[in-house]
Amino acid sequence: MWVPVHWLGAGPALQLYISEAGEAKSASHSTFPPVRPQPDGQPTLTVAMSLRSPAAQAARKTLTRPSISRVSHYGRRLASMATVAPPVTQNSVGQKGPTAMVFMNMGGPSTTDEVGDFLSRLFSDADLIPLGRLQSYLGPLISRRRTPKIQRQYAEIGGGSPIRKWSEYQCAEMCKILDRICPETAPHKPYVAFRYAKPLTEEMYVRLLEDGFGQGRGGRAVAFTQYPQYSCSTTGSSLNELWKWRNRLEGKRATGEANPVGTITWSVIDRWPTHPGLVEAFARNIEAKLAEYPEERRKDVVLLFSAHSLPMSVVNRGDPYPAEVAATVHAVMHRLGFSNAYRLCWQSQVGPSAWLGAQTSDTVKEYVNRGHTDLILVPIAFTSDHIETLYELDKEVLHEYAQGHPGVKRAESLNGNPVFIQALADIAKDHLQKGEVCSRQMGLRCQGCKSERCLEQKKFFMGEQEIMPTAR
Amino acid sequence: MWVPVHWLGAGPALQLYISEAGEAKSASHSTFPPVRPQPDGQPTLTVAMSLRSPAAQAARKTLTRPSISRVSHYGRRLASMATVAPPVTQNSVGQKGPTAMVFMNMGGPSTTDEVGDFLSRLFSDADLIPLGRLQSYLGPLISRRRTPKIQRQYAEIGGGSPIRKWSEYQCAEMCKILDRICPETAPHKPYVAFRYAKPLTEEMYVRLLEDGFGQGRGGRAVAFTQYPQYSCSTTGSSLNELWKWRNRLEGKRATGEANPVGTITWSVIDRWPTHPGLVEAFARNIEAKLAEYPEERRKDVVLLFSAHSLPMSVVNRGDPYPAEVAATVHAVMHRLGFSNAYRLCWQSQVGPSAWLGAQTSDTVKEYVNRGHTDLILVPIAFTSDHIETLYELDKEVLHEYAQGHPGVKRAESLNGNPVFIQALADIAKDHLQKGEVCSRQMGLRCQGCKSERCLEQKKFFMGEQEIMPTAR
Repeated sequence: MWVPVHWLGAGPALQLYISEAGEAKSASHSTFPPVRPQPDGQPTLTVAMSLRSPAAQAARKTLTRPSISRVSHYGRRLASMATVAPPVTQNSVGQKGPTAMVFMNMGGPSTTDEVGDFLSRLFSDADLIPLGRLQSYLGPLISRRRTPKIQRQYAEIGGGSPIRKWSEYQCAEMCKILDRICPETAPHKPYVAFRYAKPLTEEMYVRLLEDGFGQGRGGRAVAFTQYPQYSCSTTGSSLNELWKWRNRLEGKRATGEANPVGTITWSVIDRWPTHPGLVEAFARNIEAKLAEYPEERRKDVVLLFSAHSLPMSVVNRGDPYPAEVAATVHAVMHRLGFSNAYRLCWQSQVGPSAWLGAQTSDTVKEYVNRGHTDLILVPIAFTSDHIETLYELDKEVLHEYAQGHPGVKRAESLNGNPVFIQALADIAKDHLQKGEVCSRQMGLRCQGCKSERCLEQKKFFMGEQEIMPTAR
Repeated sequence: MWVPVHWLGAGPALQLYISEAGEAKSASHSTFPPVRPQPDGQPTLTVAMSLRSPAAQAARKTLTRPSISRVSHYGRRLASMATVAPPVTQNSVGQKGPTAMVFMNMGGPSTTDEVGDFLSRLFSDADLIPLGRLQSYLGPLISRRRTPKIQRQYAEIGGGSPIRKWSEYQCAEMCKILDRICPETAPHKPYVAFRYAKPLTEEMYVRLLEDGFGQGRGGRAVAFTQYPQYSCSTTGSSLNELWKWRNRLEGKRATGEANPVGTITWSVIDRWPTHPGLVEAFARNIEAKLAEYPEERRKDVVLLFSAHSLPMSVVNRGDPYPAEVAATVHAVMHRLGFSNAYRLCWQSQVGPSAWLGAQTSDTVKEYVNRGHTDLILVPIAFTSDHIETLYELDKEVLHEYAQGHPGVKRAESLNGNPVFIQALADIAKDHLQKGEVCSRQMGLRCQGCKSERCLEQKKFFMGEQEIMPTAR
């Protein structure tokens, strides 16, 4: 028998019940099925709350904490879910789901009006563009000065970035496949969290809470980076942001406790540079583009893999990204039987400091000047179209630097490619079934890292107690 | 019936015969079985000569040239061997051998007395250390100033580099395996050509000629780089040197003709960064070193792959080396099931210009300072021990930077490792049986390349007429 305790105010209304055995249960009015308690759960008084409501703030203080979630191994983190109260709408038994699948990416402005905010966030991010002590002054300054130019670029590619559309589509499609191939963690619920554009990390997190995850109700969420290759500037920055908002909405800054009972259990898919499905999707797009050349010219076409560059200060700090991008390129060429000559080059350098080269634009210019005009540009570090493909490669490089030579082409981005989406599902399934928190590699801080944020983030995702010595 | 024509003087004495059908045949007194003509050979008057002898110089002028070896495809280059005269000691029929297998590497001084010459050659090589217009002035200056210090380093590692010993051993052992697994190109004859130490490229080339290859007698030789990953600074420099000496001893500067009849037919194994045998050999050495740690610490040991760095000017020119080193690292970690966290770092930076980082020494220092003292250094771009492993890693990094922590170790170099030598044989067999001149990738000049030497070398190895547009 369940006894209603009280209602919490605004936001996602949640009802809290306590069973005679002391087991708590909450009813979410959100349409998404709420989380299920673990079979070995201890009965615990757990309170579901709406964000920032006075009731919620009062409730936070009453949270009990019979077991502390200080474990690094994913299986043992799951044990903390044992203390989670079952929501009343829980209707599937014997399932580990629902599982929130959160696609993380940098994002892009969906309209030209969002460009200013997008750039402002981007240049304020020291993980991405380290501007030193003057970051908070220089960031907004640079972004304000660049806004009109970048707005014109977005106007030229149709008025905004398609990255939100593609990310939401990919994630939803992946979840459908996952429900089928990984039923034990179903249902899989798609979320997108962008670092610099809507939906921002905090918006995603609020939605998660509204949908019945966390805040006493536990539940499992997977942060799935959409950068196949790990960089502290990209995936690292997204994880820092996720850790920050987790702390504000569910952790110490929300409850006074670092690990209150019944928070969301996070795990991370932090890199997948050479997953065979990813490699297959890239290879097929290259083959499709090669097929556009007359057969006698095909073997002499040069493949120019292009990835976003990094400042040398980041490379020299030990960032793993250049090596992982190179691994993707090699895997794709291996899949293609090394049928063509190729180079890996780097695009989108900004500002006067040293960046990793050779530059994509210079590369195209040099080869075209030598009369070599059969080139395929292959974006290898982003999976969806965005300004760096649609404007920088298609408008600037293909038209300006390649002087419009018809032999200079670009391979399609992966976008809605079903081979790619199947790969995403396979990667996610493998992660869910292995039950790991993240890759072992993620536990290792870069040799030159001085970021406390990065240290704390790793401690959180790896689990506080069993933090690898490598994260120190 | 064979009719003796005349003897040529000093050096390897060779007898020249002309058959009634006009087919030529020479007898080498070297112990090595001389080359065999192709079955479809056209009868041609071909002269064997000893290097620089007056008779040879006279003979060069009489060389006829019924077919010009201007072909890029290896099969078609082989056709130029069709014009080669069979040496009289030819005793194996139905064979494509003998085949010269030439290991190319930078080399190292075998004694401290050779250090001066070694450094002088090294700092004079603009392919390796680009010093601009002042190369010929700065190179000797730097090498003279560094000689005493480097001599002391070689003294500390036993008085010289073991690289000659290892190279000769590896090549000889590989040839024995090849004779067994690739009998159609047997016998395989081992040669070593170092870029900066004895045996130098020209010494190797003279030995080849003395042993019955080339100078009218044709024959096949494979330039097998011992740098698994291609850099214009290393393999490229060795190929430039080989092209130069081929030109001086057999080509235009020797005979007045770019492609005289009966020269050695060269092909190149130019890179093998992810060959499964190489990867297996590296992985096993790492596993052996990991097994030295107590089991409970083993999974937290960090693997630090260390490769010789490159100046950023070379990286930004488009040199493929950093990406290929990264591919090796990724393949080794894949083979190890990503069991440990790892980083790729770069060693042996010299001088004030910018080099690719993060630096190996800084990396070890940083991790040790953070209290992380279980580290394995893995030399990943050299296969044999040399000063960079025995002195720089073992003396400087392990003892100075790691402060002698016993948890900081180095994985063995491949040296005489039988898994590695089997891999070399497998790579060579694959190359010999495919009949390719070199990888398609070798045909592509770097985007920032301004070197005429590099262009001419590629033209030579790819074949002049069918040179890929990418080499332009």
